[in-house]
Amino acid sequence: MGKIQITLPDGAIKEMPKGSTPMEVATSISEGLARNVISANFNDRTVEVTTPLEKDGALTLYTWNNDEGKKAFWHSSSHVLAQALQELYPGIKLTIGPAIENGFYYDVDFGENSISEKDFPLIEKKALEIARGKHDFKMREVSKEDALSFYKNEDNNYKVELIENLEDGDITFCDHSTFTDLCRGGHIPNTGIIKAFKILNAAGAYWRGDENNPQLTRVYGISFPKQKELTEYLELLEEAKKRDHRKLGKELELFTFSQKVGMGLPMWLPKGAALRERLENFLKKAQKKAGYEMVVTPHIGQKELYVTSGHYAKYGEDSFQPITTPREDEEFLLKPMNCPHHCEIYNFQPHSYKDLPIRYAEFGTVYRYEQSGELHGLTRVRGFTQDDAHIFCTPEQLDQEFKNVIDLVLYVFTSLGFNNFNAQVSVRDLEKPEKYIGSPENWEKAEQAIIAAAEDKGLEFKIEPGEAAFYGPKLDFMVKDALGRSWQLGTIQVDYSLPERFDLTYKGSDNELHRPIMIHRAPFGSLERFVAILLEHTGGSFPLWLIPTQAIVLPVSEKHEKYAQKVLNSLENHEIRALIDNRNETVGKKIREAEMQKIPFMVIVGERELEEGSISIRRHGGEDLGSVSTEDFSNLISTEINSTLKSF
Amino acid sequence: MGKIQITLPDGAIKEMPKGSTPMEVATSISEGLARNVISANFNDRTVEVTTPLEKDGALTLYTWNNDEGKKAFWHSSSHVLAQALQELYPGIKLTIGPAIENGFYYDVDFGENSISEKDFPLIEKKALEIARGKHDFKMREVSKEDALSFYKNEDNNYKVELIENLEDGDITFCDHSTFTDLCRGGHIPNTGIIKAFKILNAAGAYWRGDENNPQLTRVYGISFPKQKELTEYLELLEEAKKRDHRKLGKELELFTFSQKVGMGLPMWLPKGAALRERLENFLKKAQKKAGYEMVVTPHIGQKELYVTSGHYAKYGEDSFQPITTPREDEEFLLKPMNCPHHCEIYNFQPHSYKDLPIRYAEFGTVYRYEQSGELHGLTRVRGFTQDDAHIFCTPEQLDQEFKNVIDLVLYVFTSLGFNNFNAQVSVRDLEKPEKYIGSPENWEKAEQAIIAAAEDKGLEFKIEPGEAAFYGPKLDFMVKDALGRSWQLGTIQVDYSLPERFDLTYKGSDNELHRPIMIHRAPFGSLERFVAILLEHTGGSFPLWLIPTQAIVLPVSEKHEKYAQKVLNSLENHEIRALIDNRNETVGKKIREAEMQKIPFMVIVGERELEEGSISIRRHGGEDLGSVSTEDFSNLISTEINSTLKSF
Repeated sequence: MGKIQITLPDGAIKEMPKGSTPMEVATSISEGLARNVISANFNDRTVEVTTPLEKDGALTLYTWNNDEGKKAFWHSSSHVLAQALQELYPGIKLTIGPAIENGFYYDVDFGENSISEKDFPLIEKKALEIARGKHDFKMREVSKEDALSFYKNEDNNYKVELIENLEDGDITFCDHSTFTDLCRGGHIPNTGIIKAFKILNAAGAYWRGDENNPQLTRVYGISFPKQKELTEYLELLEEAKKRDHRKLGKELELFTFSQKVGMGLPMWLPKGAALRERLENFLKKAQKKAGYEMVVTPHIGQKELYVTSGHYAKYGEDSFQPITTPREDEEFLLKPMNCPHHCEIYNFQPHSYKDLPIRYAEFGTVYRYEQSGELHGLTRVRGFTQDDAHIFCTPEQLDQEFKNVIDLVLYVFTSLGFNNFNAQVSVRDLEKPEKYIGSPENWEKAEQAIIAAAEDKGLEFKIEPGEAAFYGPKLDFMVKDALGRSWQLGTIQVDYSLPERFDLTYKGSDNELHRPIMIHRAPFGSLERFVAILLEHTGGSFPLWLIPTQAIVLPVSEKHEKYAQKVLNSLENHEIRALIDNRNETVGKKIREAEMQKIPFMVIVGERELEEGSISIRRHGGEDLGSVSTEDFSNLISTEINSTLKSF
Repeated sequence: MGKIQITLPDGAIKEMPKGSTPMEVATSISEGLARNVISANFNDRTVEVTTPLEKDGALTLYTWNNDEGKKAFWHSSSHVLAQALQELYPGIKLTIGPAIENGFYYDVDFGENSISEKDFPLIEKKALEIARGKHDFKMREVSKEDALSFYKNEDNNYKVELIENLEDGDITFCDHSTFTDLCRGGHIPNTGIIKAFKILNAAGAYWRGDENNPQLTRVYGISFPKQKELTEYLELLEEAKKRDHRKLGKELELFTFSQKVGMGLPMWLPKGAALRERLENFLKKAQKKAGYEMVVTPHIGQKELYVTSGHYAKYGEDSFQPITTPREDEEFLLKPMNCPHHCEIYNFQPHSYKDLPIRYAEFGTVYRYEQSGELHGLTRVRGFTQDDAHIFCTPEQLDQEFKNVIDLVLYVFTSLGFNNFNAQVSVRDLEKPEKYIGSPENWEKAEQAIIAAAEDKGLEFKIEPGEAAFYGPKLDFMVKDALGRSWQLGTIQVDYSLPERFDLTYKGSDNELHRPIMIHRAPFGSLERFVAILLEHTGGSFPLWLIPTQAIVLPVSEKHEKYAQKVLNSLENHEIRALIDNRNETVGKKIREAEMQKIPFMVIVGERELEEGSISIRRHGGEDLGSVSTEDFSNLISTEINSTLKSF
């Protein structure tokens, strides 16, 4: 029997008998690894851990701790779900059942029947019964003819349609227990690994996503190798629901949507607008120190502007359509980005190398069309405000400018309590050069500059080929929120293309004209998305410098109201954002409600305080800070703010 | 001979012989008046001062100091211009020659010839010669037939066309000297009153303003009863040219336009954006004290929003046309105003009378289509930012709210150095009720509320029927700038209509639902227009709190540069907006240039200052403030700012 050479991810090469399985490779490494391996990849194809390897190649072994391992786990669980459904509801027609980011689903035609939440426990029970049977997942090739005949026999027109679009010789089935499914593979070894199983939801879905097709029921589930992990996940889901920014945004009266104004077009209510302004002022202050200058540009531009920039050719058809005027041959577009306007400002006058770098910043509201079904709260909208800036610099300045931007982005994150983040450098897909504007030489230079800056700043980052924007490579920051979810936030992009397209120049020390390089950057990304993420991260308990209401004055009884009002005025004079609760309720109830509203400080004024001319402070959570003067309280707040909000 | 009763503007009634002229009435009042009377109005018709009055009626006598008097003066001057041109260029064809706001023009067909600036002195000389002849202006009726034959004889097809459109019996000629013109009347007694005469410009103009018609030459002129007045006027024109905000905006690098972005869409350069922000912050601070809350709304809204508001029916066709989306049956409009969005924010939640008044403010950028030929710098644009706010109040609160808004508007004006203003109350045209949205009862109430508030605040105001917006009456403020020109600035409008259309309600103390009243207001009007007017008013010498550069540091020689830089940093730490002039030039030259740039303070640092650790201050205009510390200088600036910028 021959031997094959298996290359492992660390570069080590293992010689194994031809026909060895990934599981056997794992066993040859360690028993512990073998116990945990649930999926594998061989020569860039997902394989079963039981697939015999017949030639030399690169093997990666996956456990539950890898995304690929989870995918196999959940994909396998969807087979178990399908079997459970088929046993409980004979005659249903199964369609497709993939793994998704969290869990899996199966789209099912229940015919006349339907299922609802009350049926979930029974389905879960049946699925766990099947799982406990420790049935192996076994792949086998079938001919197209046999595959068609199998599903025609079951009267399943959906699977028949799927098979008709496949090539003969390319069709596989997966068997486990008494259940068989059309499947490409990528399973865990057996059902016994699935220890916890939960149906999350059942919702309508059209066959192949087309509303002209029959409606199916999409049954969502999730599964885990340990019951404890399911419990934790459900707690997280519960917490995420509480922290849903759409819910909090309404409760805290930050923003709203109107059917008449239009979907995906947020309107900021007074508390939200004030919060947004504090965020803007915070960034403006840091940007001023970093040498940025603010500009203001209109929200429309002639179509020609976007023809010049290349945006029209790239996105025109999928955008808000052009605006015409009544009598003249003109076409305008809602601006989808601020860069073309800033290029035109750069061109307002000639520049010398001594003027550079020039850094134009704008809180620029842009409009991008999204299908109505894609819209989601503040995270996916049709109009949003970028904390945008464009830096025009010489090639010699690029490195330093890029590093300065990274410093600014990190300052923003830490000031807002995001301490857990990493970065992604998005570079070209070298195999699809036609996707990108600009010369390969320039791309190469830009990509190297980004990587060098990220390394210099000690960022944890990965490089993603093919993820670059069409006009340049970029550095994106992903933050982890308090629930461990990842969000894409700030972005920094190098651009060699727009300076060409807008014929931007500066006169060098050699007295010749040169092209500046452009950097696009937005630490927040957009104010809308940032506030959404901050809401979900903090559950509404914003940092003290940002929170809408910092303190609430609670008079103990009616006769303290006048003094309470005086205290409120005094707090406002100290620039403390405070409210008063003048209702005819007990102070106990007022405290409980202030706790619910997550107001950081309660200022209690009763008989003693009135006599002493003092105030008593209770911190959110219950800590009693005792009786102090308004000045002391104001100093306390300043000190706390300064301890989290350093200056840039 | 019979008597007639002549009622004068003060109500006095004079009995005069039938057939007396306005001049005779003037003489009967006083010799002084008779010397100055140059035109008159009898029973709402402009008449000559020599027209015999045949019946009882109301007579107003005009002198040069009345707008109507100036109109007669300039209209008469256009006859003199026409005569001068005809004598100098025989064979030309005269068309029309009205008085305008400042002077008059005559549109002339010069045939093969043309005139240019070098011909102006000759024309002026000829006109003054004619004027000195003291020729009386004499009106006479002519039959249509005679009138036509007169001009056919002169081969003047333009006048023939005009006469063809007139009714027989309604046609008059005016004779003076050897010259005759078709004319409706309204002349001064004789040409001798015209003592100064100036041709200002000659430009192309189409017959009847239609570009398909022959091109004529429009000759602009102005005339005065005293040479001194002409001299002053020409100086004013010269000064206005220097203060043209388009010129200053470019010189001071405040804003720019780009052909590619589109006409009428200003882009604010760093210095302009910072200035704009200072204006916004100034108003925000006052508005906060006045109980306003900021909101932020998108720049588009569904067409339906404007159908509901009534704007679409009223302005839809003349506006930027609707924006469609690629795949859905949707139409959006660029927002021409912020009120519909604010109504939708009001409707975010139910309101009680206890919540009112609610005051939503937004620096809202709106877009309104203007024909390209109508655009002018920042005063007539296609996109501008209103310092908008909408107050929702109960009928009982309307009066007080309106007065509070007047207080705010006056605060804005005086803080910015506009001390010369009056107001106009624009009410309905009672004869055209179809022009207005809303019931006559509501209009009546609103109009009375505005007039009462204006009286209460001691405003100097006039009432203009027919000038109201379609949705409500309004109070507009007109300010006089340093050159005596009037500009329309802030506006306050009562609106009973939108609350109906958006079904806005509040629960009253009676537990029933009621309609709130809405007040629209914008003290600046728009930031663009306001900055333009402020530029022309101040010639760029903005108030100290607003000016882009408050101080410039001037090192005496190279060896003081390091210390100068330290001084600059120290000034910046004191929040003084300062620059440094590090060029290798003499301090004398630097001072001269800083004077040119109108920088309020020059901070000179040389040997003595370096030794003492002090700075020497020179004020714009030359005053030497001597050697002081940075702290003293900072205090000086604060004191000067606080003396002009009171808090609201």
